[in-house]
Amino acid sequence: MAASPELIKQAKQAVGQQAAQLVASGMVVGLGTGSTAAFMIEALGERLRRGEIQGIRGVPTSFQATVLARQAGIPLTSLDEVEEIDLAIDGADEVDPHKNLIKGGGAAHTREKIVASLARELVVVVDESKLVERLGSTFPVPVEVLPIAVMPVMRALTKLGGQPELRMAVKKDGPVITDQGNMVVDVKFADIPDPAALEARINNIPGVVENGLFVGLAGRVLVGHVVDGHPQVRVW
Amino acid sequence: MAASPELIKQAKQAVGQQAAQLVASGMVVGLGTGSTAAFMIEALGERLRRGEIQGIRGVPTSFQATVLARQAGIPLTSLDEVEEIDLAIDGADEVDPHKNLIKGGGAAHTREKIVASLARELVVVVDESKLVERLGSTFPVPVEVLPIAVMPVMRALTKLGGQPELRMAVKKDGPVITDQGNMVVDVKFADIPDPAALEARINNIPGVVENGLFVGLAGRVLVGHVVDGHPQVRVW
Repeated sequence: MAASPELIKQAKQAVGQQAAQLVASGMVVGLGTGSTAAFMIEALGERLRRGEIQGIRGVPTSFQATVLARQAGIPLTSLDEVEEIDLAIDGADEVDPHKNLIKGGGAAHTREKIVASLARELVVVVDESKLVERLGSTFPVPVEVLPIAVMPVMRALTKLGGQPELRMAVKKDGPVITDQGNMVVDVKFADIPDPAALEARINNIPGVVENGLFVGLAGRVLVGHVVDGHPQVRVW
Repeated sequence: MAASPELIKQAKQAVGQQAAQLVASGMVVGLGTGSTAAFMIEALGERLRRGEIQGIRGVPTSFQATVLARQAGIPLTSLDEVEEIDLAIDGADEVDPHKNLIKGGGAAHTREKIVASLARELVVVVDESKLVERLGSTFPVPVEVLPIAVMPVMRALTKLGGQPELRMAVKKDGPVITDQGNMVVDVKFADIPDPAALEARINNIPGVVENGLFVGLAGRVLVGHVVDGHPQVRVW
């Protein structure tokens, strides 16, 4: 039986709180985007307020993360000021058994990948519904594209075997615009046998900024699930 | 003896004019950026005015090309409206014996590569000084980068063996900003043994939009040179 939305929310919250426990004093922390990462940012702010840790600096992956971190009282720094990130904590839309990810449901995958690639460890926080046997089975691959290149990039993605669709906005007419001012094309693939090869091939299409395949970047995966009506976290 | 600046200019003009002769009525033409491409755009406008050709549509690769094409009276279209480009005509900063190119001295290489990749043929227009034995020997590789990612991308480019430098603007304080609102990092490599591999590797760095290595895209190369004080063009 599927867990209720309220229980799933509690599972996400439990995962976010447990991820916040991984942060030690003085760390530079990548702050992810999305509902589970939001719980982590909130919990991290509480740990600071309670005096459990101090001297941390956050590197936000989006405008959303920036706002939440400010509300939570987390001091922020930028990619211009730090050479390395001790720990990045971020959600994912899909996680496969090799810990490869699809990200970008929140259209923040470009900045998330920049931050993840600088982190000693990317800790992934998800609820159980994000675990898949094969990447692409439930979620398309989000591709951030320069506005001038949307049409030719969509044709190039079709040639790669995908079914591309321009992501349309809600509460705004027309397409979603990313924090960087670009557009997002969601690409459904019947099968992704070699995620690393597909990642590089998509990034080599002129006009593509970045895609949501995260290969070999994830460290620990914290999975929230519901057991007997109670939220639990397992570390993988 | 090196040709005078005036003779080099005449050679560029001769190349631009000859390239404009390759355009036939009804063609969709990619309009390049830079001083030699500018002569081509001018000559193409003259051919239209003289009634030698008609019904062509230009796809500009930059704001500069857009302005010049409007001045020359060339009807314009966009990448949203055409599926294929019959002929793209563009300059280059370096051309090697395999017709691989470095482009991006004018910071327009991203849009130039989008246009070139859609063209049945990319005709390259250069003066003789652009011909090199090995790519990278006279010119760095320009890389268009998201502003937020300049520092980490520069470190990643150093790890690839390059010497990256943020391109600074003239007549504007701080860095050059591209027509897409991004920055340009010029990367000097001691050696580029495999341009295709380097192109893909740079494009896979999170935060990189596109780089100036054009591999396997060029068709005919029109080279302007000066013989006995006279501008000449050879087709390669």
